[in-house]
Amino acid sequence: MFLQNSWYVGAWADELAAGALLGRTILGEPVLFYRSAQGAIAALEDRCCHRGLPLHHGQVLGEHVQCGYHGLVYDRSGACIKVPGQERVPRGAKVKSYPVVEQDRIVWIWMGAPELADPAAIVRHPWHDDPEWAWTKDRYLVNANYQLINDNLMDLTHVGYVHTKTIGGTPEAHSNAETKTDRSGTGVKVSRWMLNSIPPPAYTQAVKFGKERVDRWMEIEFFPASVVRIHTGATDAGTGAYEGRREGGFGFMGLNAMTPETEHSTHYFWSGAHNFMVGKPEATQRLRKSLEVTFGEDKVVVESQYATLRANPDAPQISIASDAGMVAARKLIAELIERERKAA
Amino acid sequence: MFLQNSWYVGAWADELAAGALLGRTILGEPVLFYRSAQGAIAALEDRCCHRGLPLHHGQVLGEHVQCGYHGLVYDRSGACIKVPGQERVPRGAKVKSYPVVEQDRIVWIWMGAPELADPAAIVRHPWHDDPEWAWTKDRYLVNANYQLINDNLMDLTHVGYVHTKTIGGTPEAHSNAETKTDRSGTGVKVSRWMLNSIPPPAYTQAVKFGKERVDRWMEIEFFPASVVRIHTGATDAGTGAYEGRREGGFGFMGLNAMTPETEHSTHYFWSGAHNFMVGKPEATQRLRKSLEVTFGEDKVVVESQYATLRANPDAPQISIASDAGMVAARKLIAELIERERKAA
Amino acid sequence: MFLQNSWYVGAWADELAAGALLGRTILGEPVLFYRSAQGAIAALEDRCCHRGLPLHHGQVLGEHVQCGYHGLVYDRSGACIKVPGQERVPRGAKVKSYPVVEQDRIVWIWMGAPELADPAAIVRHPWHDDPEWAWTKDRYLVNANYQLINDNLMDLTHVGYVHTKTIGGTPEAHSNAETKTDRSGTGVKVSRWMLNSIPPPAYTQAVKFGKERVDRWMEIEFFPASVVRIHTGATDAGTGAYEGRREGGFGFMGLNAMTPETEHSTHYFWSGAHNFMVGKPEATQRLRKSLEVTFGEDKVVVESQYATLRANPDAPQISIASDAGMVAARKLIAELIERERKAA
Repeated sequence: MFLQNSWYVGAWADELAAGALLGRTILGEPVLFYRSAQGAIAALEDRCCHRGLPLHHGQVLGEHVQCGYHGLVYDRSGACIKVPGQERVPRGAKVKSYPVVEQDRIVWIWMGAPELADPAAIVRHPWHDDPEWAWTKDRYLVNANYQLINDNLMDLTHVGYVHTKTIGGTPEAHSNAETKTDRSGTGVKVSRWMLNSIPPPAYTQAVKFGKERVDRWMEIEFFPASVVRIHTGATDAGTGAYEGRREGGFGFMGLNAMTPETEHSTHYFWSGAHNFMVGKPEATQRLRKSLEVTFGEDKVVVESQYATLRANPDAPQISIASDAGMVAARKLIAELIERERKAA
Repeated sequence: MFLQNSWYVGAWADELAAGALLGRTILGEPVLFYRSAQGAIAALEDRCCHRGLPLHHGQVLGEHVQCGYHGLVYDRSGACIKVPGQERVPRGAKVKSYPVVEQDRIVWIWMGAPELADPAAIVRHPWHDDPEWAWTKDRYLVNANYQLINDNLMDLTHVGYVHTKTIGGTPEAHSNAETKTDRSGTGVKVSRWMLNSIPPPAYTQAVKFGKERVDRWMEIEFFPASVVRIHTGATDAGTGAYEGRREGGFGFMGLNAMTPETEHSTHYFWSGAHNFMVGKPEATQRLRKSLEVTFGEDKVVVESQYATLRANPDAPQISIASDAGMVAARKLIAELIERERKAA
Repeated sequence: MFLQNSWYVGAWADELAAGALLGRTILGEPVLFYRSAQGAIAALEDRCCHRGLPLHHGQVLGEHVQCGYHGLVYDRSGACIKVPGQERVPRGAKVKSYPVVEQDRIVWIWMGAPELADPAAIVRHPWHDDPEWAWTKDRYLVNANYQLINDNLMDLTHVGYVHTKTIGGTPEAHSNAETKTDRSGTGVKVSRWMLNSIPPPAYTQAVKFGKERVDRWMEIEFFPASVVRIHTGATDAGTGAYEGRREGGFGFMGLNAMTPETEHSTHYFWSGAHNFMVGKPEATQRLRKSLEVTFGEDKVVVESQYATLRANPDAPQISIASDAGMVAARKLIAELIERERKAA
């Protein structure tokens, strides 16, 4: 059971060069993404209406796409406009099409009712196009329900136990730091502040602070169904970070988009942007290596967790204090799915 | 649901040297083929009646086969004739046996009621033993229902879209050529003629025609449940090819046998014979390479198509003009299965 | 359907160094084995009571184990004794614990009602700690129900057909030797004697007998649910082996423990001990290589057999004379399971 009326990350924009085709299952449906000769992106049902071959075996013809089996041609709305060897296109020859928006280097897709798709509702992520920031990205297929990855990101106390090789640090420090969970009208925000604190080595190696002490933050924003942005950083103590002035200093902006492939598997799109040593590719490369290790560790954990939960779905689960963020996120998703179900 | 009372290709004859055992699942049943010391081929249930070990783990003993677990010996009728360590063979100790015929370098098997097995009903394919022809062959396991391969072969307009690297040519030419579909009493025949036409380069490189123009044909014969023979070629224009005189010139004779392994997988036996450059192994080798690429492309297509159809079996399919051959073949199979069901 | 109230081999003792964790599914349940800093072994449910991550991803902390996701700590009884970031441990925060006994280099586990677990009921195997014997061991995962491996071991006439490369010898000799099957109150014993016989080459190469003829035996002891000990050997003829005096001469003691992972897969623990050339590692290594080939052949057979039986569970099976041991073992297991079912 998925939230249908929501924008999902379908692909990174650069996965689709001009004339490229990409087949990807999203919310259990086979989707073809293609970029036309003029550069527009379309998303169609990835199943020819004739004999079912996925259209991604075919080819892009200008603004259209042609099936790779018997040559049927579709336009960007999914209408079949040509059948080789005959004059007339049969009635009903068409495939479903999905609203798509290319924005912030991301291809967003709407799997629900097309008339409800409002591009203004898409999460913006300007750091992918900001010359003051550098970034890197990837996509992992994770064999787990997408909500387990949401859970993972909404409770960063796991960092001290799962990521001992990279960003772990002192587990107790993470667990004991005071954490605030806000549930706004449309999302969930978890934030933690260490005001007037000594910055960690990773920070002082990356940037030159003006003072010995910094104001340090970790902010997690959840946008249903499944985008989580994590902003961590520090600026000179007392210069107003808490009030919103966070320019300079050390900043990391992580984007995580968990797009369900099926109930049991997830396309995990991630990007990491940094505001230090911009223009030095080796710094971005170092960050990338670290993120690959970190997200690889998360993948092992959530896949193992999911296999265990699936094998015995009725085993009870107890709750602990640090669950607040994940519980709020799950509750919000459940409400939105219920509302959608009632409207249908 | 398979057509039981039909001859299927079980193996290439040279898969079975003297004393060789071969286990293969056919129509969902485990079958042991073996060739006795005297050269006869037998087909038995590949499951010892004692504790179920497949007999292909055992060994051939003269005309018999011995289980590789506790040494029970079976004759070619499937009767257990010896149990080590005891005098008497227990009542009921036997396995099923299947009628087999070795003919035209092929081992044919009958999975249905043995008393209905008539060797005279087997499709003949003399080109495997004709000194004027050279040939090559293979067997692929295709993860799709066998009827999808039938479909593929019955509508050769796919050649222009799927086989762009080898035999594709101009898609529109294939789609627009006039095609005749005949449904005889026992099969389906699709034929297409290009009389008085310019031969393609592949033809003129292979043979020397007497005239500039040729009469060119493509004939597809379907024999239920699942043999498709494809005869393509060309002879000098006006010399009677259409009336049946097709000696000399360029000739290719393809045999395709789709033997269901299960509902979801198929043993695809194929051979290709040519009447030009016979005795030049490099010509046969060149043909083989081309057929491997071609049938490899078909395998990708039908497996992807089948996975998509299985994931959503109720998705509608629209029909187009070039479906005539495949629709006739499917209809014939359905009728034969229905007739078999009623008789049972 | 497993026999729950029975001791199973859970691990070899040396699989668990101090501080080591081991996750293993037993009778379908995920089990964590760990050895504490002080050397005690505990077995817990391998699923954190918080969000289900298997505990084997965590770490041993002294006598306790800590979950590798959010740091919950459990003691050896399965009670959660600490949750990072909060004062109180929530009510009901615990996982199941299983009785374990480390004995004879083996970790035994009891999956049933803990109050019924009697360590005195565990099969003893002193040859793992006897300086007059040398031994080797391994564990294979076999994709078959455990009873098929029991069957295999209870009827050694298979040796002549399956193990032609190693210990096979003359099939007929094995099948025709007189065999006695005793069903004691708690197990099954199959024995075979060749009194006053010529020893086989493998025996005379390994030990120097005092006479030309030997008294030779093969004894198979089955302890339900799934331990089979095989003792083979020979001593000088007429020196009392049959009456129990079997010191010296040639002796091989094999331990086989078939611990169900699931209904369809089995942890097959095996060891082989020899009383000749003790202290010569090359002799033990030679034995090991031979056992690896032998048990590898058995694995192929029982996996193939199981796949065939599963595909058609209703196919009839006929019985033969040499089945006596396996039939008795199966009957005993069935009775014990039935008794357990009635008591519950």
